[in-house]
Amino acid sequence: MPKESNVDVLIIGAGPAGVMCANGLARAGVNVRIIDKRPSKVMAGQADGIQPRTLEVLDSYGLARPLLDQAAQMTMAAFYSPSPKGGIERIGRVPDVTAPTARFPYEATLHQGEIESIFLRSMRKEGLEVDRPIIPTALEVSSDEEELSNPNAYPVKVTLQHLDAESEEERTEVVRAKFVVGCDGAHSWVRKTCGINMDGEQTDFIWGVLDMVPSADTNFPDTRCKTALHSHNGSCMIIPREGDKIRLYIQLTDTDAVDPTTGRINLGLYNPARLMEVAKKSFEPYTIDTDISAIEWWTIYMIGQRVASSFSVHERVFIAGDACHTHSPKAGQGMNASMNDTHNLIWKLTHVLRGWADMSLLKTYEFERRKYAQDLIAFDKKFSAMFSGKYNATGGLSHEDFLAAFQGYGNFTSGVGIHYAPSPIVVPDFQRAASHLTIGQRLPPQRLIRGADARAVDIQDLCPADTRFKLFVFTGTNRAHQQVLADALNKDGALARRAREKDMLDVIAVCKGAKATFNWLEIPAALRPSWQKVLLDDTCVQGNGGRVYATYGISDAGALALVRPDGYVGTVAPLDRLDVVEKYFAAFTKV
Amino acid sequence: MPKESNVDVLIIGAGPAGVMCANGLARAGVNVRIIDKRPSKVMAGQADGIQPRTLEVLDSYGLARPLLDQAAQMTMAAFYSPSPKGGIERIGRVPDVTAPTARFPYEATLHQGEIESIFLRSMRKEGLEVDRPIIPTALEVSSDEEELSNPNAYPVKVTLQHLDAESEEERTEVVRAKFVVGCDGAHSWVRKTCGINMDGEQTDFIWGVLDMVPSADTNFPDTRCKTALHSHNGSCMIIPREGDKIRLYIQLTDTDAVDPTTGRINLGLYNPARLMEVAKKSFEPYTIDTDISAIEWWTIYMIGQRVASSFSVHERVFIAGDACHTHSPKAGQGMNASMNDTHNLIWKLTHVLRGWADMSLLKTYEFERRKYAQDLIAFDKKFSAMFSGKYNATGGLSHEDFLAAFQGYGNFTSGVGIHYAPSPIVVPDFQRAASHLTIGQRLPPQRLIRGADARAVDIQDLCPADTRFKLFVFTGTNRAHQQVLADALNKDGALARRAREKDMLDVIAVCKGAKATFNWLEIPAALRPSWQKVLLDDTCVQGNGGRVYATYGISDAGALALVRPDGYVGTVAPLDRLDVVEKYFAAFTKV
Repeated sequence: MPKESNVDVLIIGAGPAGVMCANGLARAGVNVRIIDKRPSKVMAGQADGIQPRTLEVLDSYGLARPLLDQAAQMTMAAFYSPSPKGGIERIGRVPDVTAPTARFPYEATLHQGEIESIFLRSMRKEGLEVDRPIIPTALEVSSDEEELSNPNAYPVKVTLQHLDAESEEERTEVVRAKFVVGCDGAHSWVRKTCGINMDGEQTDFIWGVLDMVPSADTNFPDTRCKTALHSHNGSCMIIPREGDKIRLYIQLTDTDAVDPTTGRINLGLYNPARLMEVAKKSFEPYTIDTDISAIEWWTIYMIGQRVASSFSVHERVFIAGDACHTHSPKAGQGMNASMNDTHNLIWKLTHVLRGWADMSLLKTYEFERRKYAQDLIAFDKKFSAMFSGKYNATGGLSHEDFLAAFQGYGNFTSGVGIHYAPSPIVVPDFQRAASHLTIGQRLPPQRLIRGADARAVDIQDLCPADTRFKLFVFTGTNRAHQQVLADALNKDGALARRAREKDMLDVIAVCKGAKATFNWLEIPAALRPSWQKVLLDDTCVQGNGGRVYATYGISDAGALALVRPDGYVGTVAPLDRLDVVEKYFAAFTKV
Repeated sequence: MPKESNVDVLIIGAGPAGVMCANGLARAGVNVRIIDKRPSKVMAGQADGIQPRTLEVLDSYGLARPLLDQAAQMTMAAFYSPSPKGGIERIGRVPDVTAPTARFPYEATLHQGEIESIFLRSMRKEGLEVDRPIIPTALEVSSDEEELSNPNAYPVKVTLQHLDAESEEERTEVVRAKFVVGCDGAHSWVRKTCGINMDGEQTDFIWGVLDMVPSADTNFPDTRCKTALHSHNGSCMIIPREGDKIRLYIQLTDTDAVDPTTGRINLGLYNPARLMEVAKKSFEPYTIDTDISAIEWWTIYMIGQRVASSFSVHERVFIAGDACHTHSPKAGQGMNASMNDTHNLIWKLTHVLRGWADMSLLKTYEFERRKYAQDLIAFDKKFSAMFSGKYNATGGLSHEDFLAAFQGYGNFTSGVGIHYAPSPIVVPDFQRAASHLTIGQRLPPQRLIRGADARAVDIQDLCPADTRFKLFVFTGTNRAHQQVLADALNKDGALARRAREKDMLDVIAVCKGAKATFNWLEIPAALRPSWQKVLLDDTCVQGNGGRVYATYGISDAGALALVRPDGYVGTVAPLDRLDVVEKYFAAFTKV
């Protein structure tokens, strides 16, 4: 008999989606296990770009700083196009990120192995390690309705094989899980085993990619920008990386890397020196070179653009990351989409497992993330065609078209524009109470100060990924209305009161006033649980910040803004409509 | 025979001055030993305030962040004075730091033991630990002129006693040192043994101090500000601390804590409950209380205001920190003065020990730091009298006088205004070449961007405490002049070239231009050792920063600015006057 055990959540695959999920659940105290087939983590290459919104998300887990300590910051984008004199010439440089509200106005780049390590170190503090090398070999989901609807049941049975087992008895293991999350990549075993299809198609664009350190005597000035280079000899894209490293994406017009019998890429038919030769032609008249031994990693790929038809089986088995969506890597979205999939799922699983939320909450994962994935593919079709298309004066894309598209997609590519549609957890009925604080989008960063000590803080810093909802009370100027709200929050039986007592809800006051005269003790006690949670809409001593009421479109009457545990605005309401918040919670919570 | 050994630098005392010195020397690779009489580090109380300039200095060692992660930030100052209604009333709140160029516009507070730990952890990475508990019992300095003038000699013999020795043989040890630094506090054994006097006097102001967590039901709103409270029942000062802790300084009008026979404070004659009773009276009509068991530390002191008559013996034995100067703690200067003493000494000792500098460089330590200490005492006399004086409408200090003094001293108390007088290492002959970059003051922070990637950086970040001089080349707009400078820097036999080759000098270019069009490869190769060291005077993508030429008072003709390893501006010169820099180095270097 193989060894059997129970676990609340089993995560299959320790790539970016998997380690994000495992770390988030472990921090929340959830009983979780994560397995991976690889004997060790990725050492080089693969995905490397972290978008501004993902940096905000990482920051909410306390992980942006360790990443930024090592990563390159990609601040500028440079554009080159064919010169009338032959070769290419620089058109200009613009900010890489076109998203005015981005808190981190750049992309961060670092190799995937190191990014994963940041999560592994964080998980380790919670006592969690990746079990490896292990593969799943069978997965069964109960069809018993009662079992499926009971959040305490273990309706998923997964059989595992330990690849490094020293004996046959140790090789096979059975795990019974409440939930399984398949983060096992583009060729997802979980997805296939669950019979979930990928909708979409393969393109015929072929690109090579290599990571290298350019030789010191290059005369090309923009290796430290995201550089889009269009020449009569093909397109190329530079992604600056940590240290002096850069990544080159190189358009391939020959099909030598494609195996004629299978139609698939065969790396054995190509080599990095040949990739480098193609790149060098597109750089002319500039010279760029590297020692072949300084090429750390390379590959060749065809772009597929597909989305999974479903993201879960009975909300008991989920898939996330590349298992759900594949697309071109050049807009730097892959790892970001993957991490944000499981970021969306972490708090929902946690609330269900703690008995705070109904199982129905889990349906919002597919609702929110599949829609996003479809938008991503639609974007990618335009974007990758643009990059792969010939770039010239006759019939091709003009530089102006390219730049307009590049900047027009800024909110989307940066991730800050992601907008979840109305659902039980996105309730836009009273948008007018905070007209510029878009319900369904992430809470935009805003510098303000704390009332007690005038220390500058960002409102996002009050929203750590701690699985709690945050109710921002914009107290306005009317003391009587503040007291009415305080009384409503304290009322026996109020859902918001029970949610606070269960530590599912945090209340944060945002007051109007001036730091020279403000007294934080003057608002009702129910609105000031501690001096750290009373903010003031004023400039910091350096003069910047403040104006949060105006920025969010909130009048002196005040407002309520409920921010979800993942940092997205769940609903807003007038200050005297706590019932809107109560109704929001009543739709899915059980506290 | 006791065990004998040699060491380049022996540091006596592991308080703030000692651990700063030990860490800095260890990072520089100097052979150093540090001893302390205490069996373990300070656990609570004592000094706790870190001023803005000290934060800049700590940042140059990579230590500001670990400190700020734990410390409270004291951003605002609040003022209370007697109310016509009886008791006290709030006059207003103003920024705590009045120093427009401060990079960190607040004081940081944290207990001394934790601050020391930050240094101890950093030292440990260099393989250095404090040897304890050990006391010195004898110190002899050679009187042999030849030995004293030879930087490779060991002219100081120190006898040590290991307080926890398990046998008589292990108890006594003899150390021969090239240099000794006495950081052994106000009652310095090193100072007394060397026969150095303290000039100055004792005051009759008596203050109590205690660290506590206030009870939650206080109705006093400004426990998180630096609060100066003047009442008819005495003066009190609040210093907010890490977590919810606060420190109270309490003026004592009775002399019960003074032993009548010795005239000295005897803590046995007082207790913290009684201190708290005095404080509570001055808070009326506000109530503030604490559980006596929540008082973490307390003491009572009389203010002495003294400076050592000399800071060294033959530039072989130095004293630093409280061993050199004692004064009132209320302006939060003590620990800062101490750390900045040894910050001034670290690079000088290192350069002499590496054979880069003549022994004469060491004379500038006393020259610069004793003058500063005298200024500090002069300031403290006015400041502590102001705090200790009765505060009322008749004859006392008005609130306006107090506030004017508080803000008027802002540059001094923040530390950013410290100005070293002309010497071989402060050469103000060509101040006009950068009229607002004051020679002898620290390089003020300035946000600009890197030319290659447009990443925002602060110019202070290019000046880590790595023992190197930094030559900022403000390249101006004239290409021909840039080339002349590049040729001069590369000339055979040029001192600046030799200094660069020995890694004693770093060259950093600051260019004029716009990030949309700048090409960092267009300046001469000698001015761009790497892409990270070519800066651009333009705004970052968020729109702030730039205007460094204007801020520093540099014209389009460019300029040279030589910054010392401790971050102070050593000299400036026109772009075509590299000879000024050569002459600067020739005065004390031997490379």
